[in-house]
Amino acid sequence: MKKIYNFSAGPSALPKDVLSQIKEELLDFQGNGTCIAEISHRSEIFEEVHANALQNLRDLMNVPSNYRILFMQGGAIAQNAIIPLNLLGKNKLADYVITGAWSNKSYLEAQRYGDIHLCASSESDNFRSVPSYKDWTCRKNASYLHICTNETIHGVEIFNLPTFEEPLPIVADVSSHILSRPFDIKSYGVLYGGAQKNAGIAGLTIVIVREDLLDRAMSFCPSVFHWKTLDNANSMYNTPPTFAIYVAGLVFKWVRKMGGVEAMAELNKKKSQLLYHCIDNSAGFYRNDVVPSVRSMINIPFFLSRSELNVSFLEEAKANGFLYLKGHKLVGGVRASLYNAMPFEGVKALVDFMNFFKDSHA
Amino acid sequence: MKKIYNFSAGPSALPKDVLSQIKEELLDFQGNGTCIAEISHRSEIFEEVHANALQNLRDLMNVPSNYRILFMQGGAIAQNAIIPLNLLGKNKLADYVITGAWSNKSYLEAQRYGDIHLCASSESDNFRSVPSYKDWTCRKNASYLHICTNETIHGVEIFNLPTFEEPLPIVADVSSHILSRPFDIKSYGVLYGGAQKNAGIAGLTIVIVREDLLDRAMSFCPSVFHWKTLDNANSMYNTPPTFAIYVAGLVFKWVRKMGGVEAMAELNKKKSQLLYHCIDNSAGFYRNDVVPSVRSMINIPFFLSRSELNVSFLEEAKANGFLYLKGHKLVGGVRASLYNAMPFEGVKALVDFMNFFKDSHA
Repeated sequence: MKKIYNFSAGPSALPKDVLSQIKEELLDFQGNGTCIAEISHRSEIFEEVHANALQNLRDLMNVPSNYRILFMQGGAIAQNAIIPLNLLGKNKLADYVITGAWSNKSYLEAQRYGDIHLCASSESDNFRSVPSYKDWTCRKNASYLHICTNETIHGVEIFNLPTFEEPLPIVADVSSHILSRPFDIKSYGVLYGGAQKNAGIAGLTIVIVREDLLDRAMSFCPSVFHWKTLDNANSMYNTPPTFAIYVAGLVFKWVRKMGGVEAMAELNKKKSQLLYHCIDNSAGFYRNDVVPSVRSMINIPFFLSRSELNVSFLEEAKANGFLYLKGHKLVGGVRASLYNAMPFEGVKALVDFMNFFKDSHA
Repeated sequence: MKKIYNFSAGPSALPKDVLSQIKEELLDFQGNGTCIAEISHRSEIFEEVHANALQNLRDLMNVPSNYRILFMQGGAIAQNAIIPLNLLGKNKLADYVITGAWSNKSYLEAQRYGDIHLCASSESDNFRSVPSYKDWTCRKNASYLHICTNETIHGVEIFNLPTFEEPLPIVADVSSHILSRPFDIKSYGVLYGGAQKNAGIAGLTIVIVREDLLDRAMSFCPSVFHWKTLDNANSMYNTPPTFAIYVAGLVFKWVRKMGGVEAMAELNKKKSQLLYHCIDNSAGFYRNDVVPSVRSMINIPFFLSRSELNVSFLEEAKANGFLYLKGHKLVGGVRASLYNAMPFEGVKALVDFMNFFKDSHA
């Protein structure tokens, strides 16, 4: 059987070791005689799974003690509303920066909840760059500044945060690169993301909140999405997505075993450099238009200059075991997502295929 | 190895056949080379899983064509806010009936969104009955009437709906008995419930909405929880909990194979009658105080009259393979949840154990 490499942007590939462990203990979790999905979230067995997942994530991401980790539902798109609902209770001003499709979506949803100011946007540059920090027109009295640190569709990653004289809490959508590299958590007010890209399966949202931001909600914020309420209940105000938390816990353990986020960052850098090198050295056959300093290490969209070859590229790739490379419908072309679970040899094999394809169409 | 019977109230037992199939195709779903959880919700493979799950649920529950089925996240507790957010946009009046802990929770959350009227409550009766329909003080001009048709904690089930001269849309929390018996869908405006009791794993919420109720939302209802928006996107406005939908789809197929909800109702009736018979014929050793006509077929709380025996009852039950029988902390005692996945022989074995325990403490 040919080797399969899954480049799906999300939900996306899980580490093979994690899938094997799920399979092994699916019918009988640790001698309990049941599947982990069949028991109460209040059972000792699940509470241990939950606590271990939280602790491993805290250790991995080096989350300071004045930050709380919440496990929620609804993904980053739900947080687009949940964030203003939680942060605009005292002051309805919030600032947003748009660097691609995802931060644009966040900006649009937030407008329903307050006075939302667009600080900067790279739309006029077709989202190929991040607006220069000196041009961000942030308001000193805003409740927060929202950014998306990795645009999954446009392939733009923010590696260094701006610094301000009077700092605003930065709220960052990190859905597609959480655990892909270290984050300096204390530079953020809130980090959030769906688990289905780099931390497990769909249905779990990870939200890391600085304590002083937990309780600033608008009066009509649903209790179940009120961070403070949820934190008081240790993320069990409602029945949590127990199986998704279990899977995330296995992924966290696997990342630790692989050497932590520092080791993942090194690997992800190597993987992405290999692919960008292939693109940049294809004499224009392949093309990625993102400004090099903000090219994503994780989601790499690219185009065939001879766009009429796009369909056959994707078909041949699939026939060779390279799955889900089709670009997002907003931008077209090709997209390779190189999450932690993608091994170096997967990228190497893809690059070999890309070179072969290019040569056979020279 | 001794036989295990899992009486957990939720998340709860899955059919063995479903778990076996999940295990079998976990590493390679239908020859795709990936797990079903590793691929995009927009992929053809997942879209087929999603469409089949929806169709099977529609067929099983005989959902009329003017009702939409939505797959959401957050469980019934999230719907406690999402329902008023969706239904009070035109008129802020809603009526609630309290028959136990769950409808009480719904009532409390709704108060944050409108003028919420308590029509009737069985609290003064310690939630052992359903208030007589003639005493429900519903308002003709309310936007809806909310009930919980099966109180998981108090073991009270509403088998027949009230009829009104000028009918209000009835919104029913059916979390703990969806698929346990037929429902006359057209008597309801909305039915909703978490999947983790009788329809799969935690993290998926099923919402069945009559078309004319889809688009009455309050202005600040988050887009991702706005029924109309979600319906327009075929429940894929955000990334859905793909694995939970896949599991629910397998459960739906299993229910069909077992003969549908009519067959499940017959089985659940037999199971619950056996257990109630054991309780009622224990000469007061076991006790269930719910008025017989509204005793739940699914969640059966009971008490040992000699309450000092409660701990040893639970310990011996566990040692004999009867898991998760501890009553909810609000009421104490014992609770046996007899969801569809609990076979008749599981209840038979429990009853044998209960008789043995009673005789050995006579």
